[in-house]
Amino acid sequence: MRMNAKQYEESLRKLNLNVYMFGEKIENVVDNPIIRPSMNAVAATYEFSLMPEYEDLLTATSHLTGKTINRFCHIHQNTEDLVKKTKMGRLMGSLTGCCFQRCVGMDAINALSMTTYDIDAKYDTQYYERFNKYLGYVQENDLTCDGAMTDPKGDRSLPPHKQSDPDMFMHMVDQTPDGIIVRGAKAHQTGAVNSHEIIVMPTISMREQDADYAISFALPSDADGITYIMGRQSCDARKLESGQLDRGNRIYGGHEALVVFDNVFVPWDRVFMCREYEFAGQLVEQFASYHRQSYACKAGVGDVLIGAAQVAAEYNGAQKASHIKDKIIEMNHLNETLFCGSVACAALGHKEPSGTYLVDTLLANVCKQNVTRFPYEIARLAQDIAGGLMVTLPSEADLRSKEVGPLVEKYLKGNADVPTEDRMKILRLIENLTLGTAAVGYLTESMHGAGSPQAQRIMIARQTNMEAKKKVAKKLCGIDPE
Amino acid sequence: MRMNAKQYEESLRKLNLNVYMFGEKIENVVDNPIIRPSMNAVAATYEFSLMPEYEDLLTATSHLTGKTINRFCHIHQNTEDLVKKTKMGRLMGSLTGCCFQRCVGMDAINALSMTTYDIDAKYDTQYYERFNKYLGYVQENDLTCDGAMTDPKGDRSLPPHKQSDPDMFMHMVDQTPDGIIVRGAKAHQTGAVNSHEIIVMPTISMREQDADYAISFALPSDADGITYIMGRQSCDARKLESGQLDRGNRIYGGHEALVVFDNVFVPWDRVFMCREYEFAGQLVEQFASYHRQSYACKAGVGDVLIGAAQVAAEYNGAQKASHIKDKIIEMNHLNETLFCGSVACAALGHKEPSGTYLVDTLLANVCKQNVTRFPYEIARLAQDIAGGLMVTLPSEADLRSKEVGPLVEKYLKGNADVPTEDRMKILRLIENLTLGTAAVGYLTESMHGAGSPQAQRIMIARQTNMEAKKKVAKKLCGIDPE
Amino acid sequence: MRMNAKQYEESLRKLNLNVYMFGEKIENVVDNPIIRPSMNAVAATYEFSLMPEYEDLLTATSHLTGKTINRFCHIHQNTEDLVKKTKMGRLMGSLTGCCFQRCVGMDAINALSMTTYDIDAKYDTQYYERFNKYLGYVQENDLTCDGAMTDPKGDRSLPPHKQSDPDMFMHMVDQTPDGIIVRGAKAHQTGAVNSHEIIVMPTISMREQDADYAISFALPSDADGITYIMGRQSCDARKLESGQLDRGNRIYGGHEALVVFDNVFVPWDRVFMCREYEFAGQLVEQFASYHRQSYACKAGVGDVLIGAAQVAAEYNGAQKASHIKDKIIEMNHLNETLFCGSVACAALGHKEPSGTYLVDTLLANVCKQNVTRFPYEIARLAQDIAGGLMVTLPSEADLRSKEVGPLVEKYLKGNADVPTEDRMKILRLIENLTLGTAAVGYLTESMHGAGSPQAQRIMIARQTNMEAKKKVAKKLCGIDPE
Amino acid sequence: MRMNAKQYEESLRKLNLNVYMFGEKIENVVDNPIIRPSMNAVAATYEFSLMPEYEDLLTATSHLTGKTINRFCHIHQNTEDLVKKTKMGRLMGSLTGCCFQRCVGMDAINALSMTTYDIDAKYDTQYYERFNKYLGYVQENDLTCDGAMTDPKGDRSLPPHKQSDPDMFMHMVDQTPDGIIVRGAKAHQTGAVNSHEIIVMPTISMREQDADYAISFALPSDADGITYIMGRQSCDARKLESGQLDRGNRIYGGHEALVVFDNVFVPWDRVFMCREYEFAGQLVEQFASYHRQSYACKAGVGDVLIGAAQVAAEYNGAQKASHIKDKIIEMNHLNETLFCGSVACAALGHKEPSGTYLVDTLLANVCKQNVTRFPYEIARLAQDIAGGLMVTLPSEADLRSKEVGPLVEKYLKGNADVPTEDRMKILRLIENLTLGTAAVGYLTESMHGAGSPQAQRIMIARQTNMEAKKKVAKKLCGIDPE
Repeated sequence: MRMNAKQYEESLRKLNLNVYMFGEKIENVVDNPIIRPSMNAVAATYEFSLMPEYEDLLTATSHLTGKTINRFCHIHQNTEDLVKKTKMGRLMGSLTGCCFQRCVGMDAINALSMTTYDIDAKYDTQYYERFNKYLGYVQENDLTCDGAMTDPKGDRSLPPHKQSDPDMFMHMVDQTPDGIIVRGAKAHQTGAVNSHEIIVMPTISMREQDADYAISFALPSDADGITYIMGRQSCDARKLESGQLDRGNRIYGGHEALVVFDNVFVPWDRVFMCREYEFAGQLVEQFASYHRQSYACKAGVGDVLIGAAQVAAEYNGAQKASHIKDKIIEMNHLNETLFCGSVACAALGHKEPSGTYLVDTLLANVCKQNVTRFPYEIARLAQDIAGGLMVTLPSEADLRSKEVGPLVEKYLKGNADVPTEDRMKILRLIENLTLGTAAVGYLTESMHGAGSPQAQRIMIARQTNMEAKKKVAKKLCGIDPE
Repeated sequence: MRMNAKQYEESLRKLNLNVYMFGEKIENVVDNPIIRPSMNAVAATYEFSLMPEYEDLLTATSHLTGKTINRFCHIHQNTEDLVKKTKMGRLMGSLTGCCFQRCVGMDAINALSMTTYDIDAKYDTQYYERFNKYLGYVQENDLTCDGAMTDPKGDRSLPPHKQSDPDMFMHMVDQTPDGIIVRGAKAHQTGAVNSHEIIVMPTISMREQDADYAISFALPSDADGITYIMGRQSCDARKLESGQLDRGNRIYGGHEALVVFDNVFVPWDRVFMCREYEFAGQLVEQFASYHRQSYACKAGVGDVLIGAAQVAAEYNGAQKASHIKDKIIEMNHLNETLFCGSVACAALGHKEPSGTYLVDTLLANVCKQNVTRFPYEIARLAQDIAGGLMVTLPSEADLRSKEVGPLVEKYLKGNADVPTEDRMKILRLIENLTLGTAAVGYLTESMHGAGSPQAQRIMIARQTNMEAKKKVAKKLCGIDPE
Repeated sequence: MRMNAKQYEESLRKLNLNVYMFGEKIENVVDNPIIRPSMNAVAATYEFSLMPEYEDLLTATSHLTGKTINRFCHIHQNTEDLVKKTKMGRLMGSLTGCCFQRCVGMDAINALSMTTYDIDAKYDTQYYERFNKYLGYVQENDLTCDGAMTDPKGDRSLPPHKQSDPDMFMHMVDQTPDGIIVRGAKAHQTGAVNSHEIIVMPTISMREQDADYAISFALPSDADGITYIMGRQSCDARKLESGQLDRGNRIYGGHEALVVFDNVFVPWDRVFMCREYEFAGQLVEQFASYHRQSYACKAGVGDVLIGAAQVAAEYNGAQKASHIKDKIIEMNHLNETLFCGSVACAALGHKEPSGTYLVDTLLANVCKQNVTRFPYEIARLAQDIAGGLMVTLPSEADLRSKEVGPLVEKYLKGNADVPTEDRMKILRLIENLTLGTAAVGYLTESMHGAGSPQAQRIMIARQTNMEAKKKVAKKLCGIDPE
Repeated sequence: MRMNAKQYEESLRKLNLNVYMFGEKIENVVDNPIIRPSMNAVAATYEFSLMPEYEDLLTATSHLTGKTINRFCHIHQNTEDLVKKTKMGRLMGSLTGCCFQRCVGMDAINALSMTTYDIDAKYDTQYYERFNKYLGYVQENDLTCDGAMTDPKGDRSLPPHKQSDPDMFMHMVDQTPDGIIVRGAKAHQTGAVNSHEIIVMPTISMREQDADYAISFALPSDADGITYIMGRQSCDARKLESGQLDRGNRIYGGHEALVVFDNVFVPWDRVFMCREYEFAGQLVEQFASYHRQSYACKAGVGDVLIGAAQVAAEYNGAQKASHIKDKIIEMNHLNETLFCGSVACAALGHKEPSGTYLVDTLLANVCKQNVTRFPYEIARLAQDIAGGLMVTLPSEADLRSKEVGPLVEKYLKGNADVPTEDRMKILRLIENLTLGTAAVGYLTESMHGAGSPQAQRIMIARQTNMEAKKKVAKKLCGIDPE
């Protein structure tokens, strides 16, 4: 049964999560002022899916049940599904202006739908059926899943089993007739405390000696032994202030957490890989390819930033200057180029043996590589258009002050038809997106999310057919290509 | 009936073209050593279409007759057709390493299939039927068409009817019961003298006073009154030399010509627009959008250049240096980003009233805008990898010389397993693509073909929905969007 | 008499400034935790000038008195002085990692030393002598001056006298035998509340009708009628937290303020321009040229960021990866390119009629234009090297917590020889410089300080000798240059 | 005695050079149409030095004799000399629009003036005195010297003594009481056949086993056993055509040659290093640093290209479009940024033990690194502004033809006040600089001359004080720097 925003919020209240922030345990996660905006963003994936104008993108037909489900719980059945996923990401990014967190679970279930199938094909195991049962549960209950991949990794030059601390990668520490016991941590977990489920995957390719690290499984987010330590973000404390103006984005936000698993029990029916180490790399690559496609969301956030820059230019009275118009064009050009990469890898997707459609992996990496560059340039141009006032603006409290409020009103007036307060609001939004809490998602996460730039470059090198290119070159200049 | 390369060549021999080059009339166009490589490139569009490994991309099923035709004569019936067009362009670019010229006619017939339909819908004219009859003739005979759009334009600040010389834009100078008489010229005509047909379109939007300039029609390329003046290219004279090595690309090339129409008669059944000035802009935009998509071909030429750079690195013994590997990755990344734009605008194409599928025009412009930038950077990186020898290499004649040949052999040896001659060949190919005849197509034509960069920027500005972006921005920061 | 840091701090305590922040009047400015780091940065210009290793750059010999003075109070006497100014800026930037605020006053006095001289030359006024007396006072007392140029400007399409609110530009509202009464505001005033003096200059070129706006003068920063409203910065509230780690830079910072002048009286001996409107533009251009040179400081801040990125790479165990080394090289390359611009405009400086040396104004604009670009790319590369942990790091309070501190310690360990706390410290410094309080100075101020990018482009266009370039081009290709 | 252009030409006629081009021996080098433009460019360094308006930059006072000499023969005595060298390079680049070739000899003598001194200081040899005697001869006779550094290098992964062909690096094959016998080759020798002298230096750092390769010496360019094989350039054959228009630059050009030394005898008084292998690296680095500074010349060529682009825009009637103006600004900005690097490394130069002034080597590398990038972008922008006509223009012969000349005249008219021929001339100049013979110097030589980009990056890494940067970063965030 699909949930609306209210129902989603209520479902979270029922969880018994062990969350820490600023050194304190948080008793009421849902209402915590720093976390709440990120909950709002996930809630939007529920709410908007119920609106007629968005349902084509935000819902799909389950291949398991034929029922209409939230697309975030869907297994892609054709390239049209993949293209709709791209469009959904951009739409949600533009509606929330931040990271809405729910795509990572979608990418995890799609990757697992292929890898579990492939493991079974080789080892005659039962992972695929087990996974589908779990998937049915997720779809039926319209759950938000955290797809957890990134381990702390410790010394990056060593494989898991050579680390001085064996917990630097998630691993199985014991096995019982009922299930396995796991230990380790996952870092940078986007939307972790807004999730019902956490789906764990390995973080790198592995060899035989790392077999205990080659595990994948799902757990309820409030399973015994899981601790969440919230990461802090630039300007996070502004959410604790009484006014709203200085937050920039008043409604939505994102969060990341360090998630620690201290000898946590996983029953067998939630284990999707267990020591099949030669499939760890495949799962990583497939998840990564999907997740690199998912960065179409940044084109949506880019839409917000471009819109904000245009509004700021109008409020500054500068919108007709040719250099301003040209910068807006450049921002749009870069933003659409990002989008093209995500569309292209979707449109050229193909069917894997399990029946799931996978994006073109070369182009998915190309897409993400551009995402590590263009948002920074778009942000730079937005700051250019916004003007220096964006970082020298007095606080909302000054605007409300009896003594200095009238001075702020008077002297920070731009276009005479626009209230000074509106000018402050739009500049605070640009600050939010280029320096504040949303910059974490729009910039740094664009850099490192779904793999840092060098990870994509390695994949681009691997997936390019250089022999074919060398052959045509040799032929054209008359070198015998042997 | 589809032609093979031989048949195509023979069909050209039957034409009676009036061609000038270096101030002389060319009696035998097909065998002229400067023109021939460009003929070879068009011939390749015939030859490869007959090969099983390429026929999926290079052929299509005519919506008029149901017959298998060369895709260059096809009207796109769905987005799959559009995506295949993108792939065909890249394929042909990689097989020829140059401009193969035939896409411009394909883009012209597709644009005309929509505009003629739309004119009829408004004026109850018969253009669409007339056009389809002409199209049937083109498809049946597997003809190469030059799509001719760019007028000389004279003083760019004035509309056609205000030019001091009325011929600076193609116009109708007279009209008879049998047809119209036209006068003017088309500049930069790619592949003009390799074409059977020339399809003329207006070059800009027009108003009522320019109605005589709002004309579109097709003519056999050897119609009375048409004169071709060949443009010269960087390093063109190397094709006149006895050896082949210094040409770089030994087989293929491109050409452009200035085509002058001196009171040429066009029978009515070949006239597709005649004074319906308000459709001139639409035809230009639709043709331009298709043609901007067509620049996927440059990703194919990029494949050749990347392959050549890799071969050069290997011949230099430098292929394992990390900076070389990284530059190859960057070249591939940029090249695939180009490709993504063309795929994306195709995948998001839509059906127009006539039934023809049109690309997403915003993304087609984004695609072409990147084409005005990335090939230059790819070329720069190729020159970096190639090394300075690329421009200080002695001539083939020196290599063949009794006196200095052995010195060239000895001192220009790189990797000991590679003949010096092969090293020279690959460096000459890189020279060809970055400075020589092919640089005209890979660089300058990438800049200006299908419209100069600023033309795309204007379209990006027009086709972006800024109001929607402003609205989401305002909403998120709490400004009442009215 | 030169002051040390302590004496400087004490001198500030004696001021009676009217400062507001977060809607409240600040009674103790010097000890305010948000302002204090910026005071520390100015104090450093005093303290380091007394150290033997820095005195060559940080001191100079007064041309008025022959005494050794702080270079920030010096009038440049030769190109060596100008080059030392460039080096001083970089040095101070690297020692503080932020904006040290004092250069703006130096640039104001140097510009005024020329313009007052030139006004006198035309009008036989006494501004130059008056200014020199004031300068002697500043030098003798080693004062920090705020050079105040930027007016709020209101509707940017209108000149001062056409604004609906006449106060949108600073202007003289009355004149008495003793002095003038002024009214208006100056925005974005860097280091305003750390200054003893505020030196006001016009913000644009002016015409006769704007004569009342063509004023320049100096006031003690605590003159009656001046109100300071502090601008807030990204992450400013972290300075209110108990721990220090999350601040990044523990010692130094910057600030900007909106400074409002409500009918403030200026005695004649502090008035340096009064209605000589045709000199307003010159003063603006000369100040701007000096101030654009001053952005060599960002190369110093860049030194800190590059050093921090290198440390982070070492702590991550990634410093030997070739892509990391290459990114560090690129950061250095861009940073030194910035520096080259400032050195070059200094080395090619020249003597103005007053005897003051002025930088090459074309190259000063070129320098600043690069500053609007490269720090953003350096920051992007720093975030790339730092890794995503930079924005998902738990708070210092989590590290100190009994419950989760050990988990943070354990799981955020990188290089085994480095305490997790040190890793957190260096990542927080990178956050500070790329998203936090220092990003305001390193990025947005680099964009807009001393004029926004378009201002430099206009100057580059004006100061380039295009006729000379056209002439050589025409000559070489055989066009008669008339 | 200083020569004028005529005298220089006559002096070349007296040489008995062994030159091959296109497989043929050239009997009359000076009048060869392909070589002559490059001779003209060197001649310009003589001619302009005699003009009052240029003599301040183009002449200097010999530190040996106190006489006025051509600056190209001068040893830099202070930073003012270094800055004048930068300005001279830009001036000559702008006057010739190409590589004027003579700087490489200047850089060689300056580097040798330091290294010979330093070898003597260590080994009590007599190189410095010997070198100064030679220098006196060069200065007295106003000679053009080729500074020859780049060996063919064969397999790049092997040191000289390990090459399968021992001649892949220049080496001493025998030694007599009178001198040494050398064998090997130098590649990419700019201006080789326009030189009176050839000064040979090693190409890399060397170890003891390579001692026979650690040699430096000077020879008359027509010494027995030296053979020159001319490199061919893009569009070189246009110089053989009867018209001049299509050449672009009618007067000047450059050339490179492969220079082979077949057992050539060098008398001892012309030997400047002989087996002092540990100084090979120093000589390379010092020469390279000077030569990287020398790339200020490309800012001069950039002046020509910017001027040509502006003229083309005016002839196209497009000069008032804001995007055109902005592109011209960008070209100027990049061009001046190049220049800043060369000025800065000169202004921050220092005195070496020999008394010669050396540039700041870090900044010289930064300068050259930018030269490997910006000319390509300037060229791209020039092609953007020029329009596609630049590569589709008919030949001069077409313009002169009775049949089609009038059509070319008529249809290629832009601005009505400008003869079509002038429009063709300026477009051919832009073609020359971006694709033709001058592109070899402006682009590819900018990439590889004085060391390929990676060579500069290695030097930037070596010469940056990373420890200092790490220290300030650690201090600011509270890490104990030990």
